[in-house]
Amino acid sequence: MGIAKPMELFLNPQSVAIIGASRRTGRGSFNVAENLLELGFKGQIYPVNPNMDSILGLKVYPSVQALPPGVDLGVVMVARRAVPQVVAASIDRGLKAFIVITEGFAEADEAGKALQSELVAIAKEKGARIIGPNSLGVINSFHNFSSSLVTSRLKTNPVAFICQSGGFLEGFSEFAPGKSIDLGNMCDIGFAEVLEYLENDTEINIIALHIEGLKDGKRFLQVATRVQQRKPVLVLKAGRGESAAQATASHTSSLSGKDEVYHAAFKQAGLIQVDNVDELGDITKAFLHLPLPRGNRVAIITPSGGGATISLDAMEQHGFELAKLSETTINAIKEFFPSWSPPLNPIDIMAAGVRHGYKMVYRASLEALLEDENVDAILCIAGPPTLRTIKTTIRGRNKPVVTWVLGEWGENLLSKVQETDYHAVYPSPERAFRALAALRNYSAKRSSPTA
Amino acid sequence: MGIAKPMELFLNPQSVAIIGASRRTGRGSFNVAENLLELGFKGQIYPVNPNMDSILGLKVYPSVQALPPGVDLGVVMVARRAVPQVVAASIDRGLKAFIVITEGFAEADEAGKALQSELVAIAKEKGARIIGPNSLGVINSFHNFSSSLVTSRLKTNPVAFICQSGGFLEGFSEFAPGKSIDLGNMCDIGFAEVLEYLENDTEINIIALHIEGLKDGKRFLQVATRVQQRKPVLVLKAGRGESAAQATASHTSSLSGKDEVYHAAFKQAGLIQVDNVDELGDITKAFLHLPLPRGNRVAIITPSGGGATISLDAMEQHGFELAKLSETTINAIKEFFPSWSPPLNPIDIMAAGVRHGYKMVYRASLEALLEDENVDAILCIAGPPTLRTIKTTIRGRNKPVVTWVLGEWGENLLSKVQETDYHAVYPSPERAFRALAALRNYSAKRSSPTA
Repeated sequence: MGIAKPMELFLNPQSVAIIGASRRTGRGSFNVAENLLELGFKGQIYPVNPNMDSILGLKVYPSVQALPPGVDLGVVMVARRAVPQVVAASIDRGLKAFIVITEGFAEADEAGKALQSELVAIAKEKGARIIGPNSLGVINSFHNFSSSLVTSRLKTNPVAFICQSGGFLEGFSEFAPGKSIDLGNMCDIGFAEVLEYLENDTEINIIALHIEGLKDGKRFLQVATRVQQRKPVLVLKAGRGESAAQATASHTSSLSGKDEVYHAAFKQAGLIQVDNVDELGDITKAFLHLPLPRGNRVAIITPSGGGATISLDAMEQHGFELAKLSETTINAIKEFFPSWSPPLNPIDIMAAGVRHGYKMVYRASLEALLEDENVDAILCIAGPPTLRTIKTTIRGRNKPVVTWVLGEWGENLLSKVQETDYHAVYPSPERAFRALAALRNYSAKRSSPTA
Repeated sequence: MGIAKPMELFLNPQSVAIIGASRRTGRGSFNVAENLLELGFKGQIYPVNPNMDSILGLKVYPSVQALPPGVDLGVVMVARRAVPQVVAASIDRGLKAFIVITEGFAEADEAGKALQSELVAIAKEKGARIIGPNSLGVINSFHNFSSSLVTSRLKTNPVAFICQSGGFLEGFSEFAPGKSIDLGNMCDIGFAEVLEYLENDTEINIIALHIEGLKDGKRFLQVATRVQQRKPVLVLKAGRGESAAQATASHTSSLSGKDEVYHAAFKQAGLIQVDNVDELGDITKAFLHLPLPRGNRVAIITPSGGGATISLDAMEQHGFELAKLSETTINAIKEFFPSWSPPLNPIDIMAAGVRHGYKMVYRASLEALLEDENVDAILCIAGPPTLRTIKTTIRGRNKPVVTWVLGEWGENLLSKVQETDYHAVYPSPERAFRALAALRNYSAKRSSPTA
């Protein structure tokens, strides 16, 4: 048995039954139907709850037996003891895909373990597929769809995130996935199957994984090895230490396993391993906004000698080398520079900028570096007013340029970044070069004949 | 000779001569007088330039000889060859403190080295003090004063930053100093002297240093050892690698020296060493907003099991341990939790929140942890809507609480943080615990009898 394209039902359902729909509305009510209406979901919404007739202008169905035929997806949030029977009845009514939000299964206690086994047996026998239990399910910004209990914001980035926590569905501070899937307890759908689907998903160019533990390790590695040849696949392995391993067991009932084993396997598969959520966001941002570098040679433009020094530390730390600028580059800009401060790499433009106009010198230097065959990637150090100059200069060029923004804090900085729509901006040179290094490594691996 | 309180003249001048004042105004004009007017500087501003009579409603003086008597500070930006004579003439007119912005001295070439020696000899002979050359000088937000060529924004944080780069005067993305000083080439005023001043500066509680190289190493270590017993002193050492060492020499003419020697010395002095600008910002923010933890035992509140796991990894990495919650704490909140998901540490509040109201359960749990004698510090994992709940619950309490905000990106997140004025917020648990660890270590050192 089985369904031809289960992931289509989970990610792009045309109709959704909310089984055990909330009777409350408004903030803090965890009302999935309300969230879907807010998101502008275009499909049919069928709340199921025996204790009301309608909510938010939607007809409410008293039971799953009363549902119209042909519903794509069931989002289940009845009490845990009722879940197996409700799912069974729904399958009998024609549903074939379920997101089970309800908690208290294998992650909780012995009773929960038994309930989960029962649920799995029913799904297997009747040929249905399940995400969860203990999962907030799916957000698909391209389809205005979310099964999450909390309101989601949509961002149609070509980034997919498969995770084991509903709290991560909306991504992290610098990381906004366009599609995300919380696998919860993984009683059925696991990483390999979702990854396989994303391989051919034309809306997705970058894939990120948050893995506490794998239940289909061998198949996962096969699929991942193949997928990463087409799209970058980042992986954040959680549950390293002892406290974390214990917590994981009671969270999604996964065995987090020996960390070294995972790392070796991920490395063999060619995945991009990250250490923390900051790194995940920074590298994803780089893949999202930048072309891949062709090599290792970096040029730096800076208004600040101190900024150059710190950036060189970071550059060396991430295995880049300082490009030797071409004669053409130097000839193109040397007229602006005083004789005692010629354009070297890093190009310190302060003295030239004070004399000839800061933005003009910045633009001319950046133009020259974009043309320079000796330069594979560029770090711009700049104050926020220079972001627009950088953005307009690099538009349409095929060389990665990252920017460390100096001299702004928090909200001011971000609103400026937003305003100029220039997103390869980092708050430090360490983070800029760390992200650029991931692109370089991915690029090198792809162009190597043995890859 | 010498001046009784040179740092007062540099940081709190009552009158400033802008020697070599710009004739341009508006954006990109590098006009210090204009910047001062914009900042609302209350002192006298005396632009000096032979080629104009007035600018921006200010009388312009044709020469330093024409200045009125008693000017506190000269900000010098004439061409480098004119600097020594202009400074000499200004001293004859009664000035005793100079910020020399002009570049092209010891950091540039042999001619520059000679000019710098000449400048130093003049200042020594005539008893004046110099910051620079090759320095943007000072920003003092408490005095609406800046000598920088670029417009500054003021933020009266009790944080002072002594650095060797004008580009750093305004701080970094999470780091907004209330006072900052660019020492430039350090031909006269160096780290030790500024640090000594800041020791007794009642407007400053936290001191950060950006050091490329020291010229007064022994005195610096004496002073730093003393000052860090009264205020946390953070240090970011730049110029670690080879490229950076070369760049430093041509930047501020400092020898960056063996990195290990610096690290050993800083450690002996008890300074808080940071690796990069992110860490500098994160730890400063913690000192700015949090009480010191009394120990090592952490409690975590989370709506997400996955968030707990990642946080436990970070917690262990930074040497914290999971607190054993008191009976009182558990009794205070257990009624909200289903029997299969009792309140353990981490306290996963999702199931309880869905049943009894998310914010109520969050607040009750946090209240209990604030009272719990077994808990030294708390990590809150929360979506942005919960920030206000956290802020109002912890107000006036004497236990450090850091928050990892989940599920928001960039500007949305920051505006929410701003709105709730709750700043001990981090974009990842790694950064939250790294900052908390710095507070713990500082606290342990201060309370140890041998410190």
